[in-house]
Amino acid sequence: MDSKVLGLTLDNVRSQVPLVHCITNYVTVNDCANALLACGGSPIMSDEPEDVADITSICGGLVLNIGTLNKRSIEGMHVAGARAGELGHTIVLDPVGAGASALRTKTAADLIDTLPITVVRGNMSEVKTIAGTAAATRGVDVNPDDAVTEDNLAASASFARELASKLGCVVAITGAIDIVASADRTVAIRNGVATMGKITGTGCMLTCVVAAYAVANPDDVFGATVAAIAGHGLAGEVAAARMTPADGNGSFRTYLLDAICNMTAEQLMAGAKIEEL
Amino acid sequence: MDSKVLGLTLDNVRSQVPLVHCITNYVTVNDCANALLACGGSPIMSDEPEDVADITSICGGLVLNIGTLNKRSIEGMHVAGARAGELGHTIVLDPVGAGASALRTKTAADLIDTLPITVVRGNMSEVKTIAGTAAATRGVDVNPDDAVTEDNLAASASFARELASKLGCVVAITGAIDIVASADRTVAIRNGVATMGKITGTGCMLTCVVAAYAVANPDDVFGATVAAIAGHGLAGEVAAARMTPADGNGSFRTYLLDAICNMTAEQLMAGAKIEEL
Amino acid sequence: MDSKVLGLTLDNVRSQVPLVHCITNYVTVNDCANALLACGGSPIMSDEPEDVADITSICGGLVLNIGTLNKRSIEGMHVAGARAGELGHTIVLDPVGAGASALRTKTAADLIDTLPITVVRGNMSEVKTIAGTAAATRGVDVNPDDAVTEDNLAASASFARELASKLGCVVAITGAIDIVASADRTVAIRNGVATMGKITGTGCMLTCVVAAYAVANPDDVFGATVAAIAGHGLAGEVAAARMTPADGNGSFRTYLLDAICNMTAEQLMAGAKIEEL
Repeated sequence: MDSKVLGLTLDNVRSQVPLVHCITNYVTVNDCANALLACGGSPIMSDEPEDVADITSICGGLVLNIGTLNKRSIEGMHVAGARAGELGHTIVLDPVGAGASALRTKTAADLIDTLPITVVRGNMSEVKTIAGTAAATRGVDVNPDDAVTEDNLAASASFARELASKLGCVVAITGAIDIVASADRTVAIRNGVATMGKITGTGCMLTCVVAAYAVANPDDVFGATVAAIAGHGLAGEVAAARMTPADGNGSFRTYLLDAICNMTAEQLMAGAKIEEL
Repeated sequence: MDSKVLGLTLDNVRSQVPLVHCITNYVTVNDCANALLACGGSPIMSDEPEDVADITSICGGLVLNIGTLNKRSIEGMHVAGARAGELGHTIVLDPVGAGASALRTKTAADLIDTLPITVVRGNMSEVKTIAGTAAATRGVDVNPDDAVTEDNLAASASFARELASKLGCVVAITGAIDIVASADRTVAIRNGVATMGKITGTGCMLTCVVAAYAVANPDDVFGATVAAIAGHGLAGEVAAARMTPADGNGSFRTYLLDAICNMTAEQLMAGAKIEEL
Repeated sequence: MDSKVLGLTLDNVRSQVPLVHCITNYVTVNDCANALLACGGSPIMSDEPEDVADITSICGGLVLNIGTLNKRSIEGMHVAGARAGELGHTIVLDPVGAGASALRTKTAADLIDTLPITVVRGNMSEVKTIAGTAAATRGVDVNPDDAVTEDNLAASASFARELASKLGCVVAITGAIDIVASADRTVAIRNGVATMGKITGTGCMLTCVVAAYAVANPDDVFGATVAAIAGHGLAGEVAAARMTPADGNGSFRTYLLDAICNMTAEQLMAGAKIEEL
């Protein structure tokens, strides 16, 4: 991926301040809002079916995150998604815990079947569930058997590309190695640190940031997704480098937001580890 | 405003530890609870209609914040508000996103029509919506066209005073310049820093702190509101002064709570920038 | 309590990474998730009745925290609890605000009556409410009249032991002095600092950590509860020792998570202040 394009992608977010409507879980929602602000976007949350169509109408993008879903919020997702679809808005789906419960699996499938999803971002267990090829999901974390490794990278990339082709959207599978695929393009990203798994919500935050990047870069959603994911991993690296012996996951969470907030185009261009597959 | 009164207002919060019932959005609720504890109050959250009357009865004040409202929580606001009204409790309304959706606009109007609201605190777009003179709201942020500036300060103050007179409550409009108005008094406050807009929830937190100040100073709700707002802005200044190059909005959020927590009467008296209009 | 057992109890959590399903309030849920990750466990949150049975089935333990309860989440607690009971999972009840409202008091009683609760953890006002001997609850904080002191320690321990015997579970009453009781054993724990009351959620976080410890140490739930509570108080002491003059409750919250995250078996063995009564 061209390095200057990568930097421009970030700068577009900062200059356009994309407003993103998030229907997301109540566990990590505050971090999602602050991550959106940190990256240069602006958040608004609403899940009441009677409220969401109006709210999504004033936004540029919509995040649907199915963690802590309930019947009301599921209805809200469909109402908001339908309006966002009519308006041609970016819709990013985060299938948190798909495979861990029948309701989550069904909800993810229904949203994909009925809405023009732009990007799906999840871990490999969740994405395999969506593709109907899942083994087992360990709650909201990836099943270790599903993890993308150097050994299964080519096969994982093929899987992602085929799913992207089938769904007609960008598929982003994040983990130790991230994969972003469209029907005709696949990249691997090797940014990030294991410490990111020691705080809740890094995936949820990333999904929101992907939405902001996609809204601000409508002509290249694939590139926007790659930039957002590489930048998020890089922010994790910056945060990890600040850790002192007394620091733990409380400080890491703060440093991660700080790093997203201070990320520059130059820093992203220099630090992104993106490989075309 | 008399400086000693200002300091006493803060000390009253710390000595009385006012218990504040908050029906508020799930995005910033944790920051609201910690801000209440930081300023010297004590929070309790409850939004279930069957729970709220009991809970509000043991408190001194009630915050109604309509961010992430839903039908159940709206009902809870009315039930809690009715009981709080019977008991003569302070009720502070934060009309988050009024103007951004029909449901939020209607809910804010209904609450104002039916409850004895003590203080309304919002940004100018939200408050204009309440007054029925709104142009357009940009989600949960103020429309730049609505912002209070030195140029429109006199007109903004008149607007606020007239609305306060009409509603029979204190009206607080916060932004780069804050305005607090009652039917016969108006002040401008020039504390605060722009960084406060880079984290979610500074407004929501402030609304809760205003409630704590009003509960602890029942004979001067206007002065309590002014003190709370000046103190919040001053805390933002203290937080901003602690920022290092590696710090971003994650650290700023922490520093803001710290500054609220450590604020003294002397500090508030020395740092508040309050102008009678 | 044997010091080596204490250390082993902690190490078991870190090596087993117990997955804990939490139905908990939206005020402190993010801190609960991060506390679980910090102590070595893994969190998953779900409260929708149609979702909870599946989710709890893949976990080892269940936390039921009645703060910000609503009718849907109460139903979710019963559905999840019934499944957890069938599976022999650890169930930890946190009766937040029992005594402060009829709904909370009734909900806590119903959960205790119908589910095989493993541990109850609350402040003395909440636990007295459960025992039917409560005076008055001050919201979510203990009524000062109820606080455990050196003067009433023996009587408080008897009360706890009798309740534990009656309920057939471990009873943990936390405060300045913590008491953990089963039918035939009682200990007092004197770790912790008063600053812990200046942030929201230390109790909620502790309840989740207790669950993780109990899941990872199924043969000694009593010892696991003691270890979790001593460790939590000790983490508070470590956090307090890091405080600088500019730090307030924002920083304390971060330091507390950090201290939980970095706690070692050696540190716990050296710092725990546990007295058999």
